[in-house]
Amino acid sequence: MELKILTLKEDILGVNKETAAKNQARLDKHDILSINLMSSPGAGKTSLILQTIEKLKSETRIAVIEGDVASSFDAEKIHQQGVPVVQINIPGGCHLDASMTETALNTLPLEETDLLLIENVGNLICPAEFALGEHKKVILLSAPEGDNKPQKYPLMFIEADVVLVNKVDLLPYLDFNTTAFNQAVNELNPGVKIFPVSCKTGEGLEAWLSWLENEIKQVKNHRNS
Amino acid sequence: MELKILTLKEDILGVNKETAAKNQARLDKHDILSINLMSSPGAGKTSLILQTIEKLKSETRIAVIEGDVASSFDAEKIHQQGVPVVQINIPGGCHLDASMTETALNTLPLEETDLLLIENVGNLICPAEFALGEHKKVILLSAPEGDNKPQKYPLMFIEADVVLVNKVDLLPYLDFNTTAFNQAVNELNPGVKIFPVSCKTGEGLEAWLSWLENEIKQVKNHRNS
Repeated sequence: MELKILTLKEDILGVNKETAAKNQARLDKHDILSINLMSSPGAGKTSLILQTIEKLKSETRIAVIEGDVASSFDAEKIHQQGVPVVQINIPGGCHLDASMTETALNTLPLEETDLLLIENVGNLICPAEFALGEHKKVILLSAPEGDNKPQKYPLMFIEADVVLVNKVDLLPYLDFNTTAFNQAVNELNPGVKIFPVSCKTGEGLEAWLSWLENEIKQVKNHRNS
Repeated sequence: MELKILTLKEDILGVNKETAAKNQARLDKHDILSINLMSSPGAGKTSLILQTIEKLKSETRIAVIEGDVASSFDAEKIHQQGVPVVQINIPGGCHLDASMTETALNTLPLEETDLLLIENVGNLICPAEFALGEHKKVILLSAPEGDNKPQKYPLMFIEADVVLVNKVDLLPYLDFNTTAFNQAVNELNPGVKIFPVSCKTGEGLEAWLSWLENEIKQVKNHRNS
């Protein structure tokens, strides 16, 4: 499949919630697990997607939606892995919304997809407020951002189904208090899963991949039950 | 001065530009240099402000406006340095605007201020679109965010008067191409000043402080001319 690049404007009609529900029903119809991946700029969303593709692609049919203000670097990297990908560019925008996602879904081979990874725009605030139709919200925090981000950007951590702490290979050089971070996340979102990972070294990725494979299985089991 | 915490809503009236001009005129009347400091979450804005206070406070009267979605950690740290500071919290918001800044200015001792540092909300997208009344826009990029941020978040780099690359103490552990980054910034904003710094070790801060002192001097000279 060729790399598609869409340039879209934000949904200003307030119909986001309805469109998100419609997207989710459409994904359900195809037994697709969809993940809305959110983080600050440069936290490693694309690296996580590339690692996930590498580890799962032999058994799982993956498709990707890439959200960015500008550029298509990330989509190009994913395209090189032979995975269907569509780039959404949003000049002047700061998050994906459900209608953009709908437009992107129209371009993807949904009948041949098990897992849809949606990389949201790099922003720890606005994306948390806009459902896309995803089944799970996954937040990626880059350890160099610091352990006090849950208190400073609470909505993102409240909404998360999974929190990944990336770049843990840098922990020896940072003042990052893992206990304080985990406690702060748990206060906002009790029991949420927290996985420390390094997309650079591969450290900790098994726990993330195992969670993901289990979620994909549940979608398939649901179909067969 | 006691620490003040304001909880404000975004300016939805489209009068931001006019209010920003009014704020700037008010600051000019008091011969104050004002800086709008913008970055992703956790790039080190507060650390830069604390370092700047430590190095300049014996000769320069500094005041600070702190913008955050939630919490007042940063304002408390600055308050401990004995510097007048006002915290603006914006639940559900993602950037400061000119009317918030105006409200904050009403609480600060402008007659006793030479330098106003405004720490915007941690967000590499939205703050670039809203003038506050500042004289200079300073962008802080954290090196772990990666060297491709100018292409991915171009408006912020186009608008900048100064770009600081923070956390350069981590460069030995990162795949950050300084030459590629500088070139990308220069393509968007030819001739813009780029200072590599580490707010943790103090490396490179002289160039930033020297630029700042020179700008403050120019404001004072302008008054006397």
